[in-house]
Amino acid sequence: MSLLVTGSIAIDSVRTPYGASEDCIGGSAVYFSMAASFFCPVRLVGVIGSDCPFEFAEVFSGRYVDLRGLEVRQGSKTFRWAGTYYGDMDERTTDKLELNVLAEEPPKVPELFKDSEFVFLANTTPAIQLEFLGQIEKPFFVAADTMDCWIKGHREDLKRLLKRIDCLIINDVEVQMLAAEDGLVKAAEKVLGMGPDVVVVKEGGSGSLMCGADGERFALPAYRAGEVKDPTGAGDSFAGALMGYLAQKGKRDFESLKQAMGYGTVVASFAISEFSIAGLRAIGKADIDSRFEELRELTSF
Amino acid sequence: MSLLVTGSIAIDSVRTPYGASEDCIGGSAVYFSMAASFFCPVRLVGVIGSDCPFEFAEVFSGRYVDLRGLEVRQGSKTFRWAGTYYGDMDERTTDKLELNVLAEEPPKVPELFKDSEFVFLANTTPAIQLEFLGQIEKPFFVAADTMDCWIKGHREDLKRLLKRIDCLIINDVEVQMLAAEDGLVKAAEKVLGMGPDVVVVKEGGSGSLMCGADGERFALPAYRAGEVKDPTGAGDSFAGALMGYLAQKGKRDFESLKQAMGYGTVVASFAISEFSIAGLRAIGKADIDSRFEELRELTSF
Repeated sequence: MSLLVTGSIAIDSVRTPYGASEDCIGGSAVYFSMAASFFCPVRLVGVIGSDCPFEFAEVFSGRYVDLRGLEVRQGSKTFRWAGTYYGDMDERTTDKLELNVLAEEPPKVPELFKDSEFVFLANTTPAIQLEFLGQIEKPFFVAADTMDCWIKGHREDLKRLLKRIDCLIINDVEVQMLAAEDGLVKAAEKVLGMGPDVVVVKEGGSGSLMCGADGERFALPAYRAGEVKDPTGAGDSFAGALMGYLAQKGKRDFESLKQAMGYGTVVASFAISEFSIAGLRAIGKADIDSRFEELRELTSF
Repeated sequence: MSLLVTGSIAIDSVRTPYGASEDCIGGSAVYFSMAASFFCPVRLVGVIGSDCPFEFAEVFSGRYVDLRGLEVRQGSKTFRWAGTYYGDMDERTTDKLELNVLAEEPPKVPELFKDSEFVFLANTTPAIQLEFLGQIEKPFFVAADTMDCWIKGHREDLKRLLKRIDCLIINDVEVQMLAAEDGLVKAAEKVLGMGPDVVVVKEGGSGSLMCGADGERFALPAYRAGEVKDPTGAGDSFAGALMGYLAQKGKRDFESLKQAMGYGTVVASFAISEFSIAGLRAIGKADIDSRFEELRELTSF
């Protein structure tokens, strides 16, 4: 079934203990699309400025990423982010944030994309996420990400969004903030009461947890690859593989979501092994399937 | 097969966001013995002062905990610890630490216990752990715990200990400190090079990881019970169930260690659900087996 992502395209500059990468390609929609495209075609909705240096046909070469929802806005500047990761990379600072075109009108969902069945609303203001979602005719499964500043400052919009999505993908600190509740399971269950059928909690380097509205639960440890060179995009790669797998299968039941979370874990582990999208460019579906089997082996007893 | 633990018996005072427990029973040997005794008889080696208020026959009532290695030292005072846990309980402060009898001569391993096959050396100076181990004739499987202050201040003794044990059970921060290596798998693999056949890494509320000398790997998420009231003793309860299961089976292969880690995870989840040892006193083996099956279900995909 069809899969659409709305999100950012960024010019990133990243420093980690392993080195630095200047003006490289990033953004939630880019990582998501790279990851999802191992499983199914992806429709990308995003906006860049006319200064954007990337050749997207080349970035996504060999992948089914439909760029007809990518707006190049003349006279505007592309979103830029610069950050530094420390120690075991659980900590980072944002060194520079230039919203640029992201502070302007959001792009429109093209007519051709309005019949999308699987939809991922990457992190932005809940009002914009709602605006994107309102343009989709009859989605079958909608997932969204959010973050601390929308939980704190845009709570009413976020609550409206939660009533309209099927799945919230959120990190461990933020789910507890949103629920005003300590403990991941309790927090996730409280968020289920706000609307979604499924809450997926990303625990950074430690793994992930999923709670369903009918009391279902699933937990995975991280797949620890040899080296983590650049954690940027880990969460969006995770979401991309998760949604890509579901869209490929055309399913949204909890058992399929478990498999999907396994694929999310595996694809994220490749993403963080190199800077920018190099880790995702270096692999094929066979690498993913092989590591998926390793993950299954690693966790079964 | 026989199982022996050497460790502390403590008078604990604990504060957590859920309340406080004054002058309650604690100590590594107590939590370990409670947890292990669900699986097999336990031989306890430890020392208390003549001031110790606990009735051990009652503490361990209905369990096979052999107290012939428990020395009551006249004129000495029992070890006391007081601490406070904050927020989601990953942080704690030590408010009071009175080593008392633990700063004196360690107790002896009774003749009757010297044929022990499974041995757990709970956290103390590596020199004392070595002294305990030297009194066991021909152990089949030896595991030990350690902590930051011995890694920093008693490194040579610790290195000697590592050459003589089969399994190190250690937390995530400490394994990276010991290995001087970021990343849990890399750190654990480096520690394997220091002697043990198996390294088990406890990741607090997030789960656990195990690496074997032949490249085997296993990872488990935490079993998240409803509420964490008091995390004291989680690690020793984990180790107790792990070693208890192995001693019951008389096995030390990696597949058995995986099962053992599952039991460790489950028993620790009961231990932290109440203050002191109340969580472990409230359950039976059937509760453990049932939650073990839930854990398997929770993690399989």
